Amino acid sequence: MYFDELKSLSIKNDNKIVLLVMDGLGGLPIEEGGPTELEAANTPNMDALAKKSMLGLHQGIRSGITPGSGPAHLGLFGYDPLKYKVGRGVLSALGVDFDLRNSDVAARGNFCTVDENGIIIDRRAGRIGSDVGEPLCKLLNDNVKIPGVEVFVRLVKEYRFLLVIRGEGLRANIAETDPQMVGEKPLAAKALDEASKRAAEVVQEFVMQASAILADKHPANMLVLRGFAEMPDWPTFPDLYGLKSAAIAMYPMYRGVAKLVGMNSFPAAYSYEEEIEMLEKHWEEYDFFFVHIKKTDSYGEDGDFAKKVHEIEKVDALLPRILALDPSVLIITGDHSTPCAMKSHSWHPVPVLLYAKTCRPDNIDRFGERACLGGGLGVRFPAYELMPLAIAHAEKLEKFGA
Amino acid sequence: MYFDELKSLSIKNDNKIVLLVMDGLGGLPIEEGGPTELEAANTPNMDALAKKSMLGLHQGIRSGITPGSGPAHLGLFGYDPLKYKVGRGVLSALGVDFDLRNSDVAARGNFCTVDENGIIIDRRAGRIGSDVGEPLCKLLNDNVKIPGVEVFVRLVKEYRFLLVIRGEGLRANIAETDPQMVGEKPLAAKALDEASKRAAEVVQEFVMQASAILADKHPANMLVLRGFAEMPDWPTFPDLYGLKSAAIAMYPMYRGVAKLVGMNSFPAAYSYEEEIEMLEKHWEEYDFFFVHIKKTDSYGEDGDFAKKVHEIEKVDALLPRILALDPSVLIITGDHSTPCAMKSHSWHPVPVLLYAKTCRPDNIDRFGERACLGGGLGVRFPAYELMPLAIAHAEKLEKFGA
Repeated sequence: MYFDELKSLSIKNDNKIVLLVMDGLGGLPIEEGGPTELEAANTPNMDALAKKSMLGLHQGIRSGITPGSGPAHLGLFGYDPLKYKVGRGVLSALGVDFDLRNSDVAARGNFCTVDENGIIIDRRAGRIGSDVGEPLCKLLNDNVKIPGVEVFVRLVKEYRFLLVIRGEGLRANIAETDPQMVGEKPLAAKALDEASKRAAEVVQEFVMQASAILADKHPANMLVLRGFAEMPDWPTFPDLYGLKSAAIAMYPMYRGVAKLVGMNSFPAAYSYEEEIEMLEKHWEEYDFFFVHIKKTDSYGEDGDFAKKVHEIEKVDALLPRILALDPSVLIITGDHSTPCAMKSHSWHPVPVLLYAKTCRPDNIDRFGERACLGGGLGVRFPAYELMPLAIAHAEKLEKFGA
Repeated sequence: MYFDELKSLSIKNDNKIVLLVMDGLGGLPIEEGGPTELEAANTPNMDALAKKSMLGLHQGIRSGITPGSGPAHLGLFGYDPLKYKVGRGVLSALGVDFDLRNSDVAARGNFCTVDENGIIIDRRAGRIGSDVGEPLCKLLNDNVKIPGVEVFVRLVKEYRFLLVIRGEGLRANIAETDPQMVGEKPLAAKALDEASKRAAEVVQEFVMQASAILADKHPANMLVLRGFAEMPDWPTFPDLYGLKSAAIAMYPMYRGVAKLVGMNSFPAAYSYEEEIEMLEKHWEEYDFFFVHIKKTDSYGEDGDFAKKVHEIEKVDALLPRILALDPSVLIITGDHSTPCAMKSHSWHPVPVLLYAKTCRPDNIDRFGERACLGGGLGVRFPAYELMPLAIAHAEKLEKFGA
C-alpha cells in the first residue's frame, strides 16, 4: 500500500463514510443455475442504491486464500493482511474483549490430556465444553502467582483459552510449547531472542504452576501454548486516513480488530436496530463508521440458506435509516464469503457496492454477485483498495504532483 | 514494472504507434442517470474504431489518487509514478519550457511579503499577477551574480517562479526555505547531505542578493523556495521500448515531460490541425508519437460540459486523418479524469481505446466510460501497463523463455 502518499495527501472535511460489513456475505448457488444467497434475497433498497453506485467483487487477501475474520477485516480497513499480520494470541484477546495493552504478551492455549509420564495423549482434553473450561480458567487466573507479573487466563471456547502476562520487559518472541502431536511431552517455553528471555521464564513458571493446579483435573490435566504475540505497532486507521473513526458491532472480535487499528469501539450492540441507533446517535461525532453485521456469516456456517437470505433482507430493510443520515460514501460488502453450500468461510470474491455522491454510477440496477461482474470497481480487486477509494470519494485526498 | 524484460525482449520493425491523449478525458454525469462528457459527445469515428478495438479504464497512479499532469503522463509512458517521482522544481522547469540540463538544480519559488523584522505576513505576496511577477523575475535573473554559477529566474505564473542554478558540483538535496506558514522568517537553505553543501551555499547567496533587490518591491519584498530537484536519471523511453519517439503538444508541460523521458519534442503546435500536420509530416521519421490535446482538460476545469463535449467531437473529426496514416497501434485515452461536475482533476478511472491490427476486438460499438466497463483491457488497471501492451500489439516484443 501507499500509506505515505495517502497520509501526506489527506485533507479534512465534514464528509462522512460508512463501511457496512455483512460478515460472510458472498455465497454460492445451492442448485445448478440457482441464485446465491444475496441474489435470492429481496433487497429493493440495495438494488435502488446500486443504480447510483459502483459495483465490483473484492478479494480479502489474495487469489484463492480463504480469509479468517481478523485478516479479512484488516483488508477492509486498508491493511494488506499478508504484510500486517496479527499473532493468534492477540486475535484471541480481541475475541474475548480482553483489553490488551502495548507491553502485554498474549498466547492462545489449549487444555490437553497427558499420561502418567507427562506424554500428551489428547491435544484437546477430550474436547471438554465451555462449562468445564470456564472454571478451569478461573482457577488458573486466581491461583498462579508470579512475582512482578500479572497473569490473566480467559476462556475462549471449550478447551481453548487466552493467556496474557503483563509486566516490565516482556517480549513475545517465544516458541510454542505445543508439539502439535500426541506421543510427545509439551515443549519448554523457549525465547527466540534475547529480549524475550524474561517472558519465556515467566511462561515456563506459569506452565509449572498450572500443571500442578491441573494435575487432578483429568482430562484437562495439562496445557499447551502457541501464538505468542504483542500488540502490533502499526500506523493507526484514524491517523492514516485522517478520520475520527468508530466501530459498531455485536461481537468482541470485530470491536477488537477495529480497536487494534485505533478506532474507537462502542460497547456491544445486541441487535441490528441497536447498531443503527448507535450510528444515528453518534453521527455528528465521527467521520467514519464501521458497522458490522454478524449473522449472515453464522447462518452461512450453519448452511442455512433461507436464514442467511432473511438476514440480508433485514439489513436491506434498515438501509433507509442509514441513507437518511446522508453519508457521503457508503460501502456495503462482506469481509469474505461464507457460502451455505460450504458451511465455512471461502476464498470466493465478495460483492461490493460503493455509493458516493461523487461516484460515476455503473447503471447496474441490482446488488448481487453476478450483477457486480460488470461493475466499475472491477472483479477480484484487493479489499485493501476500498479505503483509499472511500476517502477519495469523500473528497479527503489532495492531488498527487503538479 | 518489468523494464529489464521489456528491454531484453525488444525487437525492431517499422510498425508505428500513436498515443493520443485527450487531457482530462474522463468525466461524470452532470445529472442523475445522464451521460458523461465522452458519452454525450457525438463521436462516430471513435465509435466505429471501438468496434475493432479493446476498451477499458485505467488508473493513472493508484486507486483513489488524483494525478497531477506530470505523474499522470509518466504513468501513460509506462513509468510507475510512485516509483518515478519528479521534484516540483523539475516540473516547474518543464512547465515553462526551460531547457534543464543534467547537472542543474531547479526549485519552485514564491514571492512573499515580509514585515520590517523579516517575518512572513503573506506567503503569496498578495497574489500579485503575472504582470508584476514577470519584471521581478527578469530583475532577479539579470542582477543576481554568483561567481562560478549561472542563475536563471523564470516566471511560472503570478507569484510563482522557477529558479535554476547551473555550475560544477551542485546537488539538489536541500531543505525548503518555505516555513509553510505566516509569522515565521524564511528558513536558511540547508543541505541535507554532504554533496549538496555547495548548492545550498549558492542558494543562500541567491536569497541574500534577491532580498536586497526586492526590498522596496512590496508586497513582493521577499521569496521562499521549495521542491529542489535535479533531472532524474531514469531509463529513457526510446531505449526502454526501442522506439524512436516524438511528442506533439501545444503546452510546455507536456512537451517537457516527454523530454524528461527522452522523447524528441517538436516545437509548440497552435491548433489540433497543426498537431495532425506535424504527425503527417514526420510520420516516416519516428516509431512512436505522443499527441497531446489540452482543451478537454481546460473545459473540465472550467466546468463547461458543452465545450468539453465539443472538444472531444473536434478530435473525433480529426481521427480519419490519423487512421489514414495506417498506424499499427492507436491508443486513445486521457491522462486522468477532469469531470466538469468537479471542475478539477479527479481519481476516477479513465476510458481507454486500444486499436491494433493484432488486437482481439471486444465488439463494443462505442467509446465511453460505461461502454469501457465491459472491455478486454479491464477496469482500474494501472496506466503504466499500456505501453507494454502497445509494443506487444505492434509486434515489437519477442517471446519470453523457450
